[in-house]
Amino acid sequence: MTNGTKDHERWQEIGQQLRVEAVRISGNANSGHPTSSMSAADLMAVLVDKYLHYDFSAPDDPRNDHLIFSKGHASPLLYAIYHAVGAATNEELEGYRTLGSPFEGHPTPTLPWVDVATGSLGQGLPIGVGVALAAKRFDRLESRVWVLCGDSEMAEGSMWEAFEAASHWGLDNLCAIVDVNRLGQSGATRVGWDLGTYTARIEAFGWHVIEVDGHDPAAIDAAYAEAEGTTGRPTAIVARTTKGKGVKAVEDQEGAHGKAVPDWEEAMAELGGDRNITVTPPPPRGEGSVHQFDVSELDMPSWELGEEVATRKAYGEALAAVGAANGKVVALDGEVSNSTYSEIFREAHPDRYVECYIAECQLVATAVGLQVRGWVPFASTFAAFLSRAYDFVRMAAVSQADICLAGSHAGVSIGEDGPSQMALEDLASLRAVYSSVVLYPSCANQTAALVAAMADGEGIRYMRTTRAATAVLYGPDEEFHVGGAKVLRSSDDDAVCLVGAGITLHNALAAAETLAAEGIAARVVDAYSVKPIDATTLREAAAASQNKIVVVEDHWPEGGLGEAVAAVFADSGVHTRVVGLAPPGMPGSGKPDDLLAAAGIDADHIAAAARKLATG
Amino acid sequence: MTNGTKDHERWQEIGQQLRVEAVRISGNANSGHPTSSMSAADLMAVLVDKYLHYDFSAPDDPRNDHLIFSKGHASPLLYAIYHAVGAATNEELEGYRTLGSPFEGHPTPTLPWVDVATGSLGQGLPIGVGVALAAKRFDRLESRVWVLCGDSEMAEGSMWEAFEAASHWGLDNLCAIVDVNRLGQSGATRVGWDLGTYTARIEAFGWHVIEVDGHDPAAIDAAYAEAEGTTGRPTAIVARTTKGKGVKAVEDQEGAHGKAVPDWEEAMAELGGDRNITVTPPPPRGEGSVHQFDVSELDMPSWELGEEVATRKAYGEALAAVGAANGKVVALDGEVSNSTYSEIFREAHPDRYVECYIAECQLVATAVGLQVRGWVPFASTFAAFLSRAYDFVRMAAVSQADICLAGSHAGVSIGEDGPSQMALEDLASLRAVYSSVVLYPSCANQTAALVAAMADGEGIRYMRTTRAATAVLYGPDEEFHVGGAKVLRSSDDDAVCLVGAGITLHNALAAAETLAAEGIAARVVDAYSVKPIDATTLREAAAASQNKIVVVEDHWPEGGLGEAVAAVFADSGVHTRVVGLAPPGMPGSGKPDDLLAAAGIDADHIAAAARKLATG
Repeated sequence: MTNGTKDHERWQEIGQQLRVEAVRISGNANSGHPTSSMSAADLMAVLVDKYLHYDFSAPDDPRNDHLIFSKGHASPLLYAIYHAVGAATNEELEGYRTLGSPFEGHPTPTLPWVDVATGSLGQGLPIGVGVALAAKRFDRLESRVWVLCGDSEMAEGSMWEAFEAASHWGLDNLCAIVDVNRLGQSGATRVGWDLGTYTARIEAFGWHVIEVDGHDPAAIDAAYAEAEGTTGRPTAIVARTTKGKGVKAVEDQEGAHGKAVPDWEEAMAELGGDRNITVTPPPPRGEGSVHQFDVSELDMPSWELGEEVATRKAYGEALAAVGAANGKVVALDGEVSNSTYSEIFREAHPDRYVECYIAECQLVATAVGLQVRGWVPFASTFAAFLSRAYDFVRMAAVSQADICLAGSHAGVSIGEDGPSQMALEDLASLRAVYSSVVLYPSCANQTAALVAAMADGEGIRYMRTTRAATAVLYGPDEEFHVGGAKVLRSSDDDAVCLVGAGITLHNALAAAETLAAEGIAARVVDAYSVKPIDATTLREAAAASQNKIVVVEDHWPEGGLGEAVAAVFADSGVHTRVVGLAPPGMPGSGKPDDLLAAAGIDADHIAAAARKLATG
Repeated sequence: MTNGTKDHERWQEIGQQLRVEAVRISGNANSGHPTSSMSAADLMAVLVDKYLHYDFSAPDDPRNDHLIFSKGHASPLLYAIYHAVGAATNEELEGYRTLGSPFEGHPTPTLPWVDVATGSLGQGLPIGVGVALAAKRFDRLESRVWVLCGDSEMAEGSMWEAFEAASHWGLDNLCAIVDVNRLGQSGATRVGWDLGTYTARIEAFGWHVIEVDGHDPAAIDAAYAEAEGTTGRPTAIVARTTKGKGVKAVEDQEGAHGKAVPDWEEAMAELGGDRNITVTPPPPRGEGSVHQFDVSELDMPSWELGEEVATRKAYGEALAAVGAANGKVVALDGEVSNSTYSEIFREAHPDRYVECYIAECQLVATAVGLQVRGWVPFASTFAAFLSRAYDFVRMAAVSQADICLAGSHAGVSIGEDGPSQMALEDLASLRAVYSSVVLYPSCANQTAALVAAMADGEGIRYMRTTRAATAVLYGPDEEFHVGGAKVLRSSDDDAVCLVGAGITLHNALAAAETLAAEGIAARVVDAYSVKPIDATTLREAAAASQNKIVVVEDHWPEGGLGEAVAAVFADSGVHTRVVGLAPPGMPGSGKPDDLLAAAGIDADHIAAAARKLATG
């Protein structure tokens, strides 16, 4: 018997052990995805025993490899691995899918070895691309990224964004392992066991591809070795496997997805029962430490009061300045950097700019991947097009990710390009993301201060910027913070309070001038932090202006600034009236001023609403 | 001179005419995308003169072909075509990009010849796939679909979902014309003029592919003829073109995207000035009429009061019944039909079920394409995964599309699968879509009634269904309608009003029982129509219960039912207190009841909040 044969036998045993434990974990919970785990058990056995360079006692070691289960529903397999390497006990795994246990139905970073939450298919590979990019281009370490993909998720377009980006970036530290078990949740996949189709597609996207029998340890071993030896491009291992492998009752059967194996204790016996093999993955590679980019002192841009500057431009200038002082900041864009002005960052820090082209899912996924390894990503595109990546943003929150997003060209005020380019739902959709911060500055100096605050923050931080140049309202030393608001205009006899943010704040100020000329004093509040909203300032402002508020936004009436302000007063001890102004119908193309008027959110309409409320 | 040569010269002239007009339209507006129009002018000249079978005087003729500009920013070219065929006058085109003109910056169906709005890249082809499917599988007419794609948008994953779906469905009536001008908005594309890369990728996805010089009318003609003659699979024409073709100042230049050509009147002269060629496209093909599926009388399912039935199951049964009576109804699913229960429809009406696999963008795009040709699509998946297609839903509203969406497995109440599968932002994100209806039934009979209402409605109609079986609360003859609400429990001395919907309504009813035992009478309102919300019923309920409301939802606090109810009272003439209950933090996996309790939205928490409000 050669050493090779011994290895193969050992891997077969490890594979069976992983299967047994996956069956037990899900059987015990009477819930979960054992059959999807069993197909990939041999692939993972070889990987963790020989190729995954990882110190489970030091998950924060930047030299560690990464193992991402893009098919997150195979969590029983992942947790069986954690047990095999000694990171988790059998008792801990008994908590699987029960409240308070970190061993959730799909993996989340409540476990220290999980980089990102998965379970929405088609996300693990795109994020893995971001992690591999971080390791190779930014950290400059030998860390490799291994992503276990399902075959069902190959139908997700985001996978193909990932395949294209990874080859374009030459990520030879990335390996996708495609578990082709031919069966999805409700039936067979389109491609079935036609491995050649997957191979042709992935090769056409610039990868090295290896087809293997996913239950042959020798072939798997050779494939991983070949992946490690491939330079200049990523490798995909397309593995033919059998769902439910090893248990006749469920092997290659439809209707066996997402449920415990029937008679699961007998099934464990069929698999040969418990092994107690301890797996010791190879240690992290190399001795290097994370690359540090040169930095200089923080020197923020500033603008004169009254100067006309678009907040999107201020975003770009501020981000470049923040990036000069903080070498962890990376800018990403969806091929519109000359509109979002992330191009200013790119010109200042070309080695920390990532062009993601018109692939918004990969844009956000790359940002999530970068933050896994400690970078501070700012991803920008038109605010409307961030909606393409909404599921990625939602999942980023489950991943406890710290990312910054910037959306330009919001609202009807963009003008001629028309409604396809007008974000009118971004405030609502991004407020409804856990851990999110939603900022909407109205002035260049304010934008700069908030970009700096975003870089230092946590969670999902979103800034909405404006296409048009608008007047600078605040001096460069004015302080702003997440959760703040500013009173820009007030008197002792305010009859009404106008609340705006971004473009509408300017209209509110103009309306206040009009009202003043009529003898109606209007307080004006800048609610630049849409989430968290500054309830204290708003309550004080309401109390000082007859508890009458007009809130105006360039966004659909639902879920944006208007409802955020209304929510502050929903359970108020004082009767407060909150009148919301927002576009009532689908806008067309036109001059920005014409569109603001048509949407009923220009100064005249604000003044009219305030007049009626104040005198009503 | 042969006839062929004459044709080629004519097409060259038409191409130049289209360029001249694109330059004028955008020059006149000082806005728009002339260079992106000029690259595709020759491709379109040959198409409209010889291959686009379309009667511009009868855009509703179902035998018409379809021309979809997936690169919607090339609207000057599209409008120049409309002029060339006599559908639009020069005077009308002068309205380009001005308020009130249907000639918007990006095409929308405010023009009768535009099927769907484009301008968010990567959507026209997926929707075109849906249109082609409708023509071939459902209408059973010879209508062909021609989609002009940009090369930049080939980076969007949704394009690859479309390529896979179209070949899987054998859509040989579909032709994608890829305008490879090598330049995006801010720089060159990844692939540049490497046509072979596009060809390899598209072929690997199962299409017939033809490479052409996109400025050679003879080659273009031959390619279209080959596309028409290709059976069993769709055809892509990958055309090498030059952006800004014909005007030296902008030809193949970076920095010339999305703006009028400089010195545009001189540029028109450089292009040879005005032609006045009238193009008469060939007439619609064949004589057939739209296929009609057999129908029977409407026989809706019903359930006994108190029976435990999941609303997702009722959705499937009701949809099958509605589909039996209405032959226009088509069900689509994202490979989870055994979870959403659209499988019940599939079993009843297999010829009107469309499996879209795990590709949610294509799922919604297919629905949009089906409604272009008058079908009534119901697209279902887990509510959380509809977020993957949010941009498609947003754009469907710009397209004035009439589609039905159903999202199952919403909220923490799904239990063990954990947060990746829990929609907690769907109500907010879908409320913030223009034209949307958001329904959240709590009982099987109610679900059935609302499914029937959805089929007869307009706009974007969304239903959120529940995983768990819940008690039937209403009899089968109870009436429900979009915009309605029901008072389920009331007395003359109500001290507080509990508002819930879906799963939380059951908890609210249980809380009311608890409170009643303590001598606190609580009114209970079922706000099953989250948008539009029934303001009248809510105001009456508030007035009858001390103007004290507790609203409870299985959704993040932002933008959902709580804020919808709060908005009703924001500008109320009466001081009304609205207390919202919603999950405060990221849930994990667990038993549904444990998770509802942990989220503070079970009966005990509702009772506690109501007790405090009623007695406070």
